Amino acid sequence: MSEVKNIEKIEVELIAITPNAEKVIEEAGRTCYLSFDKIGANSADEFIRRLIKLGHESPLEHAYATFRIKNCSRAMTHQLVRHRLLAISQQSQRYVNEESFDYVVPETIPEEYIEDYHNDMDTIQQMYSKWRQRGLKKEDARFVLPNACTSEIVVSANFREWRHILKTRLSPKAQWEIRNVCIIILDILKENAPNCFEEI
Amino acid sequence: MSEVKNIEKIEVELIAITPNAEKVIEEAGRTCYLSFDKIGANSADEFIRRLIKLGHESPLEHAYATFRIKNCSRAMTHQLVRHRLLAISQQSQRYVNEESFDYVVPETIPEEYIEDYHNDMDTIQQMYSKWRQRGLKKEDARFVLPNACTSEIVVSANFREWRHILKTRLSPKAQWEIRNVCIIILDILKENAPNCFEEI
Amino acid sequence: MSEVKNIEKIEVELIAITPNAEKVIEEAGRTCYLSFDKIGANSADEFIRRLIKLGHESPLEHAYATFRIKNCSRAMTHQLVRHRLLAISQQSQRYVNEESFDYVVPETIPEEYIEDYHNDMDTIQQMYSKWRQRGLKKEDARFVLPNACTSEIVVSANFREWRHILKTRLSPKAQWEIRNVCIIILDILKENAPNCFEEI
Amino acid sequence: MSEVKNIEKIEVELIAITPNAEKVIEEAGRTCYLSFDKIGANSADEFIRRLIKLGHESPLEHAYATFRIKNCSRAMTHQLVRHRLLAISQQSQRYVNEESFDYVVPETIPEEYIEDYHNDMDTIQQMYSKWRQRGLKKEDARFVLPNACTSEIVVSANFREWRHILKTRLSPKAQWEIRNVCIIILDILKENAPNCFEEI
Repeated sequence: MSEVKNIEKIEVELIAITPNAEKVIEEAGRTCYLSFDKIGANSADEFIRRLIKLGHESPLEHAYATFRIKNCSRAMTHQLVRHRLLAISQQSQRYVNEESFDYVVPETIPEEYIEDYHNDMDTIQQMYSKWRQRGLKKEDARFVLPNACTSEIVVSANFREWRHILKTRLSPKAQWEIRNVCIIILDILKENAPNCFEEI
Repeated sequence: MSEVKNIEKIEVELIAITPNAEKVIEEAGRTCYLSFDKIGANSADEFIRRLIKLGHESPLEHAYATFRIKNCSRAMTHQLVRHRLLAISQQSQRYVNEESFDYVVPETIPEEYIEDYHNDMDTIQQMYSKWRQRGLKKEDARFVLPNACTSEIVVSANFREWRHILKTRLSPKAQWEIRNVCIIILDILKENAPNCFEEI
Repeated sequence: MSEVKNIEKIEVELIAITPNAEKVIEEAGRTCYLSFDKIGANSADEFIRRLIKLGHESPLEHAYATFRIKNCSRAMTHQLVRHRLLAISQQSQRYVNEESFDYVVPETIPEEYIEDYHNDMDTIQQMYSKWRQRGLKKEDARFVLPNACTSEIVVSANFREWRHILKTRLSPKAQWEIRNVCIIILDILKENAPNCFEEI
Repeated sequence: MSEVKNIEKIEVELIAITPNAEKVIEEAGRTCYLSFDKIGANSADEFIRRLIKLGHESPLEHAYATFRIKNCSRAMTHQLVRHRLLAISQQSQRYVNEESFDYVVPETIPEEYIEDYHNDMDTIQQMYSKWRQRGLKKEDARFVLPNACTSEIVVSANFREWRHILKTRLSPKAQWEIRNVCIIILDILKENAPNCFEEI
């Protein structure tokens, strides 16, 4: 049954991160004061915490992280791509055939109506296939595709920007789907650079 | 009939532009050389044309223009908002009720199938209304909304960025809808600042 | 005497600003909610104040202002040009002859030493002239020029960015010269768009 | 003798780079087409060369490189910091004592005049020391410091931006010092990501 195939859980995978990110940030940041003599075994921890406390976040721009996000909706990516400092490579509905598109099921749909939601998605899939068979190009057949349609997207940003995105999108007012993605990203970043993300 | 209501033509309206834009650009650009003595009745024309020929476009950043675009699809705006230097205020499907949404009809749909396209849109409108009646919030009911759904958007950029956007999106490879918007924007900008946009 | 000529006061002049800026911001910002029916005689005031209170500053990006700054030091401009969203046209020491350069006198120099400061500047001017006479190009003779050297610069930014720059550079920790420039800019912006800048 | 101490050669050191940068770029770039099945042993080479040929450089934003530059002049850094997408941490003349500052000697100074250039720099050093002894803070004493003064700076950018900076600053019209830095950076980047930089 198509439901089984289509309601995959959102996935977030770290695909690249600056090696020894906190060390790089410390070495860059100390350039402003030429205070390299203060570098020691654990000096980065305290240095970075102080930068953040003082709001001097520019040295955090020297570290960079890249994530692949799968099974998120186009509704979510339309929000995500608004963050201008993100580098973005996204699955294109102009180039990829969406005849058996996956889709996101909003968490707020009551159990009793889930079946009906799948029916609606099936109906829309049939519309898309029909327009393709009538000869419409993918870029025009996609006009019937719903916001629920999943997308795959690779996004990169420096740590200062990730801090900004995470703080903005983890707000209770943010949409639930982008919040869920940000929770996973925050966990991964905290593992790799605890001092840069601990107070978020 | 719903078609009549729903297939409005795309509209582009200039809502603000730097007064005497080409004069401002000349006065700013001449600061680099302190060559203010060369300013005369028609000196801006030649100055700006030379800047563009030499690829020294940074003085064009001192002029700014704002447009309102109506009746374009969300498929189009997902592309437009990728231009990072645009300032953007867009109709939100989280806040605006879309029960009788307008939609874009792709130009490539053959005459004989237009009626069927309207039927598909009607079907999706009924889905959206149903999910709203079942208590879903707008931000979740919108998951069934199609890319065809129209959006209203206000966008601002400086002239250097408008030149970049227009050159990119007027390419024959660009999507037809964003190309149509850019043709109108280019016409308006040429009227207001001919030297800045004449060779595009 | 050269002192008289050289210690001009800093000047800041508004050379362009979005006409009816607060109206433009309101009209753009209401697009998100399609709440145009709420526009009235004084509705922009309250709308903009609420945006700022909520931290929704993106509609302020639709208004833009351009200033010419004269008689500021290169020490100051090296800070100013770090604001990435500024559009910048600056007097170039590669193209402009600096044989009788003006210079800034730091406010903290005690009265009794001012004469000596002028002497130092004269000494450096003679160095520059000497290197020019020996055939060095302007771009290499400038290596002896001091940070005190004045510069003329035209800068543009949208209102959201001006708010950021002003808040950052009006801090007591900021350098006195950039603070003085920002005090004048803030005054001018408050006259033109009081609701956008009143609480800074 | 002061010359020996002061005229160090410019140094550029790579301090961080995305591991397997070209692989990351390929994996990100193929997301647009979901063409992961084409990934093979040497597929990144051809994929990246085609992206560059087509002008589709956005996937290159997923790789990032950080350099430390030593012994360059403030004349050079005032140009470098104009690249808005660079992340920058620079030695601050507000915080670092410059009493025995190093300086850059322009390559165009004839051999016979080098001694005199050192004398000029000595004279300026004595001015700086004098103003410090009279109680001026570093941020004000620096007003006498010359453009020749060396600076240490750490700069990061993504590969697309590095391509832009390198192409702009390797032009014959660029200043010799920034060109020399870019020659070294290009060599290092070519070693690490040959396909991304080979045609520059």
